[in-house]
Amino acid sequence: MKVGFIGLGRMGEAIATRILGGGHDLVVYNRTRSKADALEKAGAKVAESIGAAAAGRDVVFTMLADDVALKFVAESGLIDNLPKGAIHVPMGTHSVTAITEIEAMHKAAGQVLVGCPVLGRPDAAAAGQLGLVPAGPPEAVASLAPIWEVVGRAVFNAGTNPAGAAAVKLANNMVLGCAIEAMGEGFALTRKFGVDPVVFNQVLTEGLFSAPSYKAYGGIISTEAYDQVGFTVKLGLKDANLMLAAGQAANVPLPSCNVYRDRLLGAIAHGEGDLDWAVIARDQARASGLE
Amino acid sequence: MKVGFIGLGRMGEAIATRILGGGHDLVVYNRTRSKADALEKAGAKVAESIGAAAAGRDVVFTMLADDVALKFVAESGLIDNLPKGAIHVPMGTHSVTAITEIEAMHKAAGQVLVGCPVLGRPDAAAAGQLGLVPAGPPEAVASLAPIWEVVGRAVFNAGTNPAGAAAVKLANNMVLGCAIEAMGEGFALTRKFGVDPVVFNQVLTEGLFSAPSYKAYGGIISTEAYDQVGFTVKLGLKDANLMLAAGQAANVPLPSCNVYRDRLLGAIAHGEGDLDWAVIARDQARASGLE
Amino acid sequence: MKVGFIGLGRMGEAIATRILGGGHDLVVYNRTRSKADALEKAGAKVAESIGAAAAGRDVVFTMLADDVALKFVAESGLIDNLPKGAIHVPMGTHSVTAITEIEAMHKAAGQVLVGCPVLGRPDAAAAGQLGLVPAGPPEAVASLAPIWEVVGRAVFNAGTNPAGAAAVKLANNMVLGCAIEAMGEGFALTRKFGVDPVVFNQVLTEGLFSAPSYKAYGGIISTEAYDQVGFTVKLGLKDANLMLAAGQAANVPLPSCNVYRDRLLGAIAHGEGDLDWAVIARDQARASGLE
Amino acid sequence: MKVGFIGLGRMGEAIATRILGGGHDLVVYNRTRSKADALEKAGAKVAESIGAAAAGRDVVFTMLADDVALKFVAESGLIDNLPKGAIHVPMGTHSVTAITEIEAMHKAAGQVLVGCPVLGRPDAAAAGQLGLVPAGPPEAVASLAPIWEVVGRAVFNAGTNPAGAAAVKLANNMVLGCAIEAMGEGFALTRKFGVDPVVFNQVLTEGLFSAPSYKAYGGIISTEAYDQVGFTVKLGLKDANLMLAAGQAANVPLPSCNVYRDRLLGAIAHGEGDLDWAVIARDQARASGLE
Repeated sequence: MKVGFIGLGRMGEAIATRILGGGHDLVVYNRTRSKADALEKAGAKVAESIGAAAAGRDVVFTMLADDVALKFVAESGLIDNLPKGAIHVPMGTHSVTAITEIEAMHKAAGQVLVGCPVLGRPDAAAAGQLGLVPAGPPEAVASLAPIWEVVGRAVFNAGTNPAGAAAVKLANNMVLGCAIEAMGEGFALTRKFGVDPVVFNQVLTEGLFSAPSYKAYGGIISTEAYDQVGFTVKLGLKDANLMLAAGQAANVPLPSCNVYRDRLLGAIAHGEGDLDWAVIARDQARASGLE
Repeated sequence: MKVGFIGLGRMGEAIATRILGGGHDLVVYNRTRSKADALEKAGAKVAESIGAAAAGRDVVFTMLADDVALKFVAESGLIDNLPKGAIHVPMGTHSVTAITEIEAMHKAAGQVLVGCPVLGRPDAAAAGQLGLVPAGPPEAVASLAPIWEVVGRAVFNAGTNPAGAAAVKLANNMVLGCAIEAMGEGFALTRKFGVDPVVFNQVLTEGLFSAPSYKAYGGIISTEAYDQVGFTVKLGLKDANLMLAAGQAANVPLPSCNVYRDRLLGAIAHGEGDLDWAVIARDQARASGLE
Repeated sequence: MKVGFIGLGRMGEAIATRILGGGHDLVVYNRTRSKADALEKAGAKVAESIGAAAAGRDVVFTMLADDVALKFVAESGLIDNLPKGAIHVPMGTHSVTAITEIEAMHKAAGQVLVGCPVLGRPDAAAAGQLGLVPAGPPEAVASLAPIWEVVGRAVFNAGTNPAGAAAVKLANNMVLGCAIEAMGEGFALTRKFGVDPVVFNQVLTEGLFSAPSYKAYGGIISTEAYDQVGFTVKLGLKDANLMLAAGQAANVPLPSCNVYRDRLLGAIAHGEGDLDWAVIARDQARASGLE
Repeated sequence: MKVGFIGLGRMGEAIATRILGGGHDLVVYNRTRSKADALEKAGAKVAESIGAAAAGRDVVFTMLADDVALKFVAESGLIDNLPKGAIHVPMGTHSVTAITEIEAMHKAAGQVLVGCPVLGRPDAAAAGQLGLVPAGPPEAVASLAPIWEVVGRAVFNAGTNPAGAAAVKLANNMVLGCAIEAMGEGFALTRKFGVDPVVFNQVLTEGLFSAPSYKAYGGIISTEAYDQVGFTVKLGLKDANLMLAAGQAANVPLPSCNVYRDRLLGAIAHGEGDLDWAVIARDQARASGLE
């Protein structure tokens, strides 16, 4: 397919590289051009503008940091240059309202938006092992199969409403945030009775919760390794706000998410906003008089 | 060892059978005597009273439904007949305060209490694959190694305070309850955007949450199979109250647990108290205007 | 009327004195007899046992510290000696389940229970200015009018279920606890923007919240006068547990009450359990990084 | 003083009329010019543009519906035309971040911003009985005394940071929202025990909570008069989001506010978004299985 790719951070570059490796005709664009060098060497064309990365393409993927960047790209050449009938696939974590707004703009321009956030880290992306969560018009989603093949390990079809794909990504992250909060409560409770956090972590992760998420975060919490930062509290808060905004857009109260978000705020209030987000377990400990 | 075992429900019987199979000298007692028949056939002696199941034993295990039963057994022959220096091991899910009270009663009688709740279902017990969470005086815990060997797959040493073992069991269950609540929030949110619950369940359980707990409860929630009851809402509420009581005993606020408990109450308020506790996801859906 | 009165703390003594002053035939009982001296001088008979305070009476009032004391009194002579058709009126703050249990015991003995918690402090009681919240069989409630007249400023009829009266008292206290928590949130928020707490207190109490409760607690919070103790955090927690137990008995989730209770726990966890319960505002401030 | 006034809704018109009546030189502007007719008749000049209402003025008041309108006005002539050293006083309910942003824009233009949200309804405004909450540079606040005199019954000085005034207004509203939620919990609890809501309302409002706010909302809840709309659920949600945004700006977790906001969402989810916001008590009742 004739593919455009905008946004070459670690994740974007890894995905774009997979697409190129799959034999597709790839034009890439990044605000900082130098980040496109490796892909250029590998055979991709490098566009000098957003518009040039969209013109004549069957599909343009965007992997952008937030809604502001996504709207900027949409309004700064993407919509004006994407051919009628072509597809825009935002892959970042975005609010449901941003997706819905941009979907409408594409529709008005005779184009199609397929939401497709991804599950997994850059190393999974590089290995073509991402989880893909597409949602949009069925024919458009189906037409992207050649891309899914080279990028993902699994495709989770989230329906015909692109906002649904955004909601799945946010809800998945929310379940994780709430799990970390609940672990924090469990660690605080057991510590008060003299239980070694490493032991409680073993109980959790060798039993009911023998999943990657619990192992990773139980390990961090039980050893208080909050300075080995995978994802900061501040980014967690940005995400939590997207979750609550999705809840508001759909009229869904999210009480556990509120609890989780309050811990993020508490951590920031205590100067821990740049530590790993698992430090919310310390905020719970603090609330329990343990620190 | 000379072992007594009191409380032959499905779990108790399975554990007692393992102990007997391990070559130990076993006396059992159950309020309804007929439940001891199979063990008697297999070679266990059956005591006609609580006291007779305790007299002359090195250790007596109890597997009882709740604190009331545990206190009744302790005060109705167990403490009066257990030899000095012998050990009582309550294996049920009990409040931290009950464990601490009964520990003090044993201490006053020159006996020892080792808390040891278990992780796993009756089928795991029958296979000797339980997780064991002992806590108490180190020599007493160590002396029970011959029992752990035939009963468990793993021993998680929860320290020297028997209440700590109770706290671990409760905290483990709490993390599960909170996980179900968070899943419920995620399912409600994604349903509102037209996402098939089965798909959202796949996203959760093939990725970050590929753990037995999420698979079991994600499956129930996504198919609304709440009438296939593993554990009722009402039992969940009983447990949640033990968690909050442990939090109170240790001065630990447990905000996620509060959210979880409120959903249990909401389910009961809507006549769903005897359904599987995963039905709290329906209470979340209802609060979101989905039912 | 022939009246018995059991429990002569500050509140009980004040109410009993009013009843005596109303011309009723009064027999009093208190565990510590000396507390009955003043009433004896004023003309009351002093019973040497619970039973003696109940025998031959038309109505016996109890003003006791908690459910344990109430059950003890009921089972230690009150029910055995109260005449058939006579009335027991518990006036303390009790759980709905205790009231319901004791109601059933009286019913079985051919007696009647009318719940009647009171609103107001001992000085209001001494002045006959209490709010009274009776609930029970209508004729029984009506027959007590001569007592209400000398004891209260207002009678709030809470219906025919005595537990309803207990629920009103608990709910009234709950609304207050939640108000203090909400004020704490408001004070923490405004402090962060440099607003003088005294000024924020003026805004609240000269406007929407010009009520005794807000004035009293806004004053304490804005001046951090937590060591002038009217009601301790620990007593607040005892009460909060009664509220949540009432919620459970009736299947009512009480999310604000949970938040309020968590602050009480947080205060205790930080060694503030014997300060005035308004110190939960400091726990909120602490959670906000202000202390 | 030479005064400009922008935004002549019911509240704005009432305040502007007071200012004119105080003998000040008044120029007004409103998007829909006809709303300025009455003031024009009374002697005010009517500007045809935002800029014309700002040029040459000592102070310009704005009373606008939301942040979007405020930013629009600031950027569409107000900042460009207000003299150096002159004052802009936003009186609406705005986010702390909007106030801080616009304060910075004025500073850059050599102008001053004094935040001054108001407490009270249009009828209080018409009577010059508003509560005023100014915050900003002390000399600027002091210079506005001639205005406060004709507009307000009381001035609550919220400090030198204009965002503090916004926070006071939001926190005051938040305490009210949380009070309504807590009342809702109390009504649901007592209803379950057969207590007449009118009676519970009397208990609340004749005792601890004899304040205008409780009387108004207790009356609405106890009679379920939710269709007599003073302030809608949807507007309440807009406000609640401003509160939580203020909490985020200052790193203050607001757990009661979260509970309150969730009820607003629940009400909207059940089609009650245009009813009076006290209908959150019905959402609480529904969660309790009462509807």
